[in-house]
Amino acid sequence: MAKLSPEDALVRRISRRFPRFRGSGVRLAAGDDAALWQPRGGFQTALTSDWFLEGSHFLPHLHPPDSVGWKCLARAASDLAAIGGTPRCFLLNVALPSSCTGRWLDGFLTGLRRAAKFLDCQLAGGDTTRHERIQICVTVIGEVEKDKAVLRSGARPGDLLFVTGTLGLAELGLKQLKRGSRAKTAALRKHFYPEPRIALGRWLAENRFATAMMDISDGLSTDLARMCEASGVGAVITEGALPVPAALPAAEATRLALYGGDDYELLFAVPAGRLRALKQTLRQRRIQCIGAITKKKKLLLSNRERRTEQLLPRGWDPFRR
Amino acid sequence: MAKLSPEDALVRRISRRFPRFRGSGVRLAAGDDAALWQPRGGFQTALTSDWFLEGSHFLPHLHPPDSVGWKCLARAASDLAAIGGTPRCFLLNVALPSSCTGRWLDGFLTGLRRAAKFLDCQLAGGDTTRHERIQICVTVIGEVEKDKAVLRSGARPGDLLFVTGTLGLAELGLKQLKRGSRAKTAALRKHFYPEPRIALGRWLAENRFATAMMDISDGLSTDLARMCEASGVGAVITEGALPVPAALPAAEATRLALYGGDDYELLFAVPAGRLRALKQTLRQRRIQCIGAITKKKKLLLSNRERRTEQLLPRGWDPFRR
Repeated sequence: MAKLSPEDALVRRISRRFPRFRGSGVRLAAGDDAALWQPRGGFQTALTSDWFLEGSHFLPHLHPPDSVGWKCLARAASDLAAIGGTPRCFLLNVALPSSCTGRWLDGFLTGLRRAAKFLDCQLAGGDTTRHERIQICVTVIGEVEKDKAVLRSGARPGDLLFVTGTLGLAELGLKQLKRGSRAKTAALRKHFYPEPRIALGRWLAENRFATAMMDISDGLSTDLARMCEASGVGAVITEGALPVPAALPAAEATRLALYGGDDYELLFAVPAGRLRALKQTLRQRRIQCIGAITKKKKLLLSNRERRTEQLLPRGWDPFRR
Repeated sequence: MAKLSPEDALVRRISRRFPRFRGSGVRLAAGDDAALWQPRGGFQTALTSDWFLEGSHFLPHLHPPDSVGWKCLARAASDLAAIGGTPRCFLLNVALPSSCTGRWLDGFLTGLRRAAKFLDCQLAGGDTTRHERIQICVTVIGEVEKDKAVLRSGARPGDLLFVTGTLGLAELGLKQLKRGSRAKTAALRKHFYPEPRIALGRWLAENRFATAMMDISDGLSTDLARMCEASGVGAVITEGALPVPAALPAAEATRLALYGGDDYELLFAVPAGRLRALKQTLRQRRIQCIGAITKKKKLLLSNRERRTEQLLPRGWDPFRR
């Protein structure tokens, strides 16, 4: 038989690096024209795709290849957490310069494989080609219990707003990185290797605590505006309640929390009547009430001086910068 | 409410252009964090992703935007035809320069919408971002009857090899285009607006005629090598039987058929014992027997002088050029 073409050899090298997971739902994985997949009975298939592009989402001189591998999958999986879904498999589309098919690709696959194991998410296929710059597009396929998916559009006036984790930490990590710091801070770790809130999102959906949910990827101000738009409501946020990075001037911390990207935390609305039940069953998790949904379709920030100001969606937008 | 961010406005502009199809299986489409999908009972979900990159897969000065829109979806849908599946919905990932968000995008969406209607395939979501060059990645989700998917790996010695349509026609169209011809030839039409063989692929799968199947996207020589590799067999092809573009010197026609890309025709293997049944039920379709599967793991071409030569996989490979 003729030896494998360069493209086929590359595809084989990639797929060999990835384990198969028992019960992933994948019936036919990488190597054929299409992948076959089936969710468990009683579940729907949830689908999401995300770009991860050199120059826009990462910089090769700043971001180690294993972080690129980890983050391209984690970022897409976070969109499933946002509806209460669980990632099960993914399609990897990668376009590479020939100069990146050696060591860079190895590092990338190491990070990607680590994320795949962490998320229990099997490589099921994709497309590989050559390009002058590194281009990645990941599609994650998962499952969500029938009629349990939490949309952006369900928030109602009076609902309380919660977020997970610390907001603005990833942006702080990026700032440290750009300043040339090589210290392995929590902020840098969060920027390099974000951990999407899969288990919490699923738990909130299964127990019907959240009326609306999404992940915060472009900054709280921008993503909250999206949730309010979809739900036809407004919101008021309390500056002092924002879970911000420690040891920073207050104004800087708030700015990072409202406008910083790449957090991959969850934002969700809970009816006031469910608050006690939520707190009783949710002792260990770090979730924080940051405000409430309002009927008036405005976004407001109640600042540290207890004055109310308008909150503008000024997070990450590729078409503004 | 604050007005939509530039990115959100673009996403809305795109999703408004696309109709929803009854029975598409899409339960939640573009606009939330993830899409929800469910195949009909008795069907599995089939998934495939394909790049369509400026510079690699199309050239903005040669390819009209509506062809880019049509082809990026048709190309990915063809991978479903290749296993006997039917496309049902798709995720559109598009990265654009700001200069392309006006007229170019309109033309692109017109072609994409036409392909979506032709293929009965609904837009279900995706990701939009900015980039210096136009980058497209399409994931198509479809369904295939349980246990009826036709893989690459099922070809057995003695099976006869068939192809649909005319091989090399799309490459001929590209050559005409590069020569500056603006005549609307069949070759150019095929290059701009390929029509994946969905119905035939599904029919072959449902009736279990094909032991192995794939689509020819990188040239017969390369794709046949892949099928033989996966099946652990070889093949012999008869040059005189190849369905080639008309009115060309024989050598040139053969070259196009063996090494030309972008045909999106089907290649499939049929056990000799099923040949009569296949022909009886398949009067109108243009399919052509081009050779046979052999036990010996070599690819051979029986040429017009009835001499046998080795056939090397010399079709499109992004990492070779």
